[in-house]
Amino acid sequence: MNSSQVEQINIQKISAGKKSELADMVAVEEPLEILLAYSSQSGLMRKNIAVTMRTPGNDEELAAGFLFTEGIINNAGTIQEIKQTASDDNRILVILKENTVPVLSNIARNFYSSSSCGICGKASIDAIKINIQNCNEQDNLLIDASILYALLAHLKKEQTVFEETGGIHACALFGSEGNFILLKEDIGRHNALDKIIGNALLNDQLPLSKAVLLLSGRASFELVQKAAMAGIKIIAAVGAPSSLAVDMAKETGITLIGFLKDDRFNIYSGEQRIKLL
Amino acid sequence: MNSSQVEQINIQKISAGKKSELADMVAVEEPLEILLAYSSQSGLMRKNIAVTMRTPGNDEELAAGFLFTEGIINNAGTIQEIKQTASDDNRILVILKENTVPVLSNIARNFYSSSSCGICGKASIDAIKINIQNCNEQDNLLIDASILYALLAHLKKEQTVFEETGGIHACALFGSEGNFILLKEDIGRHNALDKIIGNALLNDQLPLSKAVLLLSGRASFELVQKAAMAGIKIIAAVGAPSSLAVDMAKETGITLIGFLKDDRFNIYSGEQRIKLL
Repeated sequence: MNSSQVEQINIQKISAGKKSELADMVAVEEPLEILLAYSSQSGLMRKNIAVTMRTPGNDEELAAGFLFTEGIINNAGTIQEIKQTASDDNRILVILKENTVPVLSNIARNFYSSSSCGICGKASIDAIKINIQNCNEQDNLLIDASILYALLAHLKKEQTVFEETGGIHACALFGSEGNFILLKEDIGRHNALDKIIGNALLNDQLPLSKAVLLLSGRASFELVQKAAMAGIKIIAAVGAPSSLAVDMAKETGITLIGFLKDDRFNIYSGEQRIKLL
Repeated sequence: MNSSQVEQINIQKISAGKKSELADMVAVEEPLEILLAYSSQSGLMRKNIAVTMRTPGNDEELAAGFLFTEGIINNAGTIQEIKQTASDDNRILVILKENTVPVLSNIARNFYSSSSCGICGKASIDAIKINIQNCNEQDNLLIDASILYALLAHLKKEQTVFEETGGIHACALFGSEGNFILLKEDIGRHNALDKIIGNALLNDQLPLSKAVLLLSGRASFELVQKAAMAGIKIIAAVGAPSSLAVDMAKETGITLIGFLKDDRFNIYSGEQRIKLL
């Protein structure tokens, strides 16, 4: 945990009609602006790509992960440097190497409206599938149900900001034997996942085709899409998936698990990778 | 509940190593594109304002609420018509009356980067405060703690989609005597709130300065900002607030309650409106 991730504030606690004053911790939420610099025919360009409300910490990984999972860059080799534009500022600048062209048409919110069949979940999935490498490639990844049962205890142990604030999402990566690899926390679950994927990208560990991704909350379309971009084949969520998350998982050959708790879970897609003893 | 809000799918349920196949319900997630049509000096304009991943239903209210809470329109009188652009399409068009100029510079994601002091939570709050009418006006709204204790039972009774799917957020409005007014559910909590505020806008019930807003999850900056735009003075969340949500509530004179459960809650801001017996 980073000291900028939690903030101490004074609150009134009410319990059975009695009031007490105390100091409490809340998760920090601050905007981060992601800027991209690259060379084009018209010279050096600098473009504002996104503003995301995030919990400070791992901003380089967040920026790199965001650019990758949105299909704007497709490998770490395109990045020359990632830096804050000024100290104590919530702006981060990603400088691309010369002759690297970012795919700005891939910014997610533009996907939907440019589809010829109108705007619907199906069109969203089709537009995004184009960007996913190795989509539906055969693999023999297999995981024991008993390994899934054990993931939550790991999550709980590693979620230090949640422990203090009760108000933050986590994403964690595990190996297929249940070995813990990495956890990131953020007020926005999409940011937590971008931090995980950005870390793997910058450490040259993509695709994450042998890893299990654990989500502390629900599984949305956006999270499954980001995981698919990173080559993740197994996603386990503590909460429920949405209809479009299930559709996306099926279309991209991902095993999607929801409502993971104790020795129970639901399989929504890709049951062939789950082994029952 | 609307039939398009839930979808039946086949799943495998794993429990203590045993597998069963069954039909289950998931909350529907589909994109909605919000389009705006208005007349300008250069003739009739049609502009793509946003794409949001939402649960279908109440799309007119969602679109109207979004435009209002983002400061793009400031009253219902500016709207001539709201309609789907085609049946079974996820596009909704809001047509403004002649001589109405939408404030497009107010689209939230542009706020941050245009601030002169750099990008930070303080700048975000300052930029948004400009758009909030009656901010910090005196009021004598007072609510009994015992009324707050009773809100969750109401929420549970009205959350029909959550009951079926376990995977959807809810926002509800109550009067200061605890009387239930309105509940909306959505896969995105900001959409659920825009649906509530859009409903009030279209029924000429803004500002909601006598109402209590109940959130089924956490309280983020964005939710407090939207509530402030609608004149809401009391927000009670089942989950934790973020640091910036607390700052925003303090700056706009909103009573912010978190971790509401049974006969307990925390007050983060505006304790003068809470009466203990």
